[in-house]
Amino acid sequence: MSRIEVKDVSKSFKDTQALSCVNLCFEENTIYGLLGRNGAGKSTLLNIINNRLFADSGRVTLDNKSLTENTDALSSCFLANESNLYPEGMKVSQALKWSQEFYPDFDREYAKKLCESFKLPVKKKIKDLSTGYRSIFQNIVALSVNVPFVFLDEPVLGLDACHRDLFYRTLIEKYSEQPFTIVISTHLIEEAANLIEHVVIIKNGEIIRNEPLDTLLDSGYCISGPGAKIDAYMEGKEVIGVDTLGGLKTAYVMGAPASQLPSGTEVSKMDLQKLFIRLTDGA
Amino acid sequence: MSRIEVKDVSKSFKDTQALSCVNLCFEENTIYGLLGRNGAGKSTLLNIINNRLFADSGRVTLDNKSLTENTDALSSCFLANESNLYPEGMKVSQALKWSQEFYPDFDREYAKKLCESFKLPVKKKIKDLSTGYRSIFQNIVALSVNVPFVFLDEPVLGLDACHRDLFYRTLIEKYSEQPFTIVISTHLIEEAANLIEHVVIIKNGEIIRNEPLDTLLDSGYCISGPGAKIDAYMEGKEVIGVDTLGGLKTAYVMGAPASQLPSGTEVSKMDLQKLFIRLTDGA
Repeated sequence: MSRIEVKDVSKSFKDTQALSCVNLCFEENTIYGLLGRNGAGKSTLLNIINNRLFADSGRVTLDNKSLTENTDALSSCFLANESNLYPEGMKVSQALKWSQEFYPDFDREYAKKLCESFKLPVKKKIKDLSTGYRSIFQNIVALSVNVPFVFLDEPVLGLDACHRDLFYRTLIEKYSEQPFTIVISTHLIEEAANLIEHVVIIKNGEIIRNEPLDTLLDSGYCISGPGAKIDAYMEGKEVIGVDTLGGLKTAYVMGAPASQLPSGTEVSKMDLQKLFIRLTDGA
Repeated sequence: MSRIEVKDVSKSFKDTQALSCVNLCFEENTIYGLLGRNGAGKSTLLNIINNRLFADSGRVTLDNKSLTENTDALSSCFLANESNLYPEGMKVSQALKWSQEFYPDFDREYAKKLCESFKLPVKKKIKDLSTGYRSIFQNIVALSVNVPFVFLDEPVLGLDACHRDLFYRTLIEKYSEQPFTIVISTHLIEEAANLIEHVVIIKNGEIIRNEPLDTLLDSGYCISGPGAKIDAYMEGKEVIGVDTLGGLKTAYVMGAPASQLPSGTEVSKMDLQKLFIRLTDGA
């Protein structure tokens, strides 16, 4: 089993401690969600793993070989983010050709097919693409490189709902046919919740949760029903949020549901985004 | 009753017909969702209404008075979008002071309170803010100007889940205390569905839906239950999407539910984002 290990990695910028002694593993053939607020350290971590930034201390390894300045090990990884590594002024079609030279398993036919599905204007220069199409271009390369570890930093930035839906469906299809490890960093947590198997939550440069999605979601539950009954039920419980719709209420509660539920109420699975907000909001 | 009317408005850029004979009304004290794919014409429409772009033909009026080049009528409107109308190099705190001079009902105390809630760095220059904080700055001004018509173009662009949640809650609170008209253009449709009362969908420069949210959602429904039962039920019906979770399936179906439902299945309200994708995807 191939795996990437992040060991005691710290990094600071001027007065800001971006990462504090981060320890993590990414196992093979798993979809990870890397979640955190703006400025929590997600992009810094992804850049360090992919040798685009140096850590102040700690190390990152692939199967015990360092990933730092190690071209051979790095060829197992691909990071898609907003920074453009292609020469200024290069067209999309040329960039896809180039990618094939750097990544021997790059599937150019598949990339071409995706360009058509997403209606990516391949004759345009990369720098002239809209934010949404720049994300799409990066995603298409990421899905076509065929390396064991793919990192997607904000892959749906600027995408409309139709393109997000198509992207999620494409990713799941590709993963089902030929599994690999995907680490997705995103602010659209409810949408990502349909994809990810394992959640890593980072807050102020520290990992505060690192567990399978189901385990995390089982740490709480939702209960819905008539407002008055939900209000009474909530008393003395750790409630992390409430939604109201007409006379009906849904409460998001930590812990396990009471064994005796009030009549007319219903228990369902916890909402990842609500849980995330509760875990990361505030100091 | 105050209202903005858009009458037969068309606009083209080079070879692209951005808007084709658009007719619309925005009534007072209502929250509108202006939904459309990237490039559908949403921003062009908002810019024309707010006199930042000229239409090729047609007109926009507030209570029958033209909004084009009419400073008096325009003072009833505010558009928050990514273009910065403040002088280059101006700090956030100065910009809030300025806003008060242009908008006599600007509530600076309220704006200050919001800056604190969102932790907006008020000493920074506007141009040095991150994308998320630029959106937050625009939103704070929009919520503090106290004009009858506020237009928000992509208000949650770059915001993390905590800030989006805070923004939605702030907006609802403000609207409940002192109603005004809010037109929100956004790609995060499921989140916006909790706010908006009236939906306008624009596709290739034409309005294809313009109706109360409930009316639109009642044009279809969701049905959930064991996979095999849902598969059998779907036959011969117009299904616009399916979600699968373990052995359970949810189908999104147009029309009214059958009077006899298979045992063990449950009907619930249509999902706005799924409906939007179906209505706007494809040529």
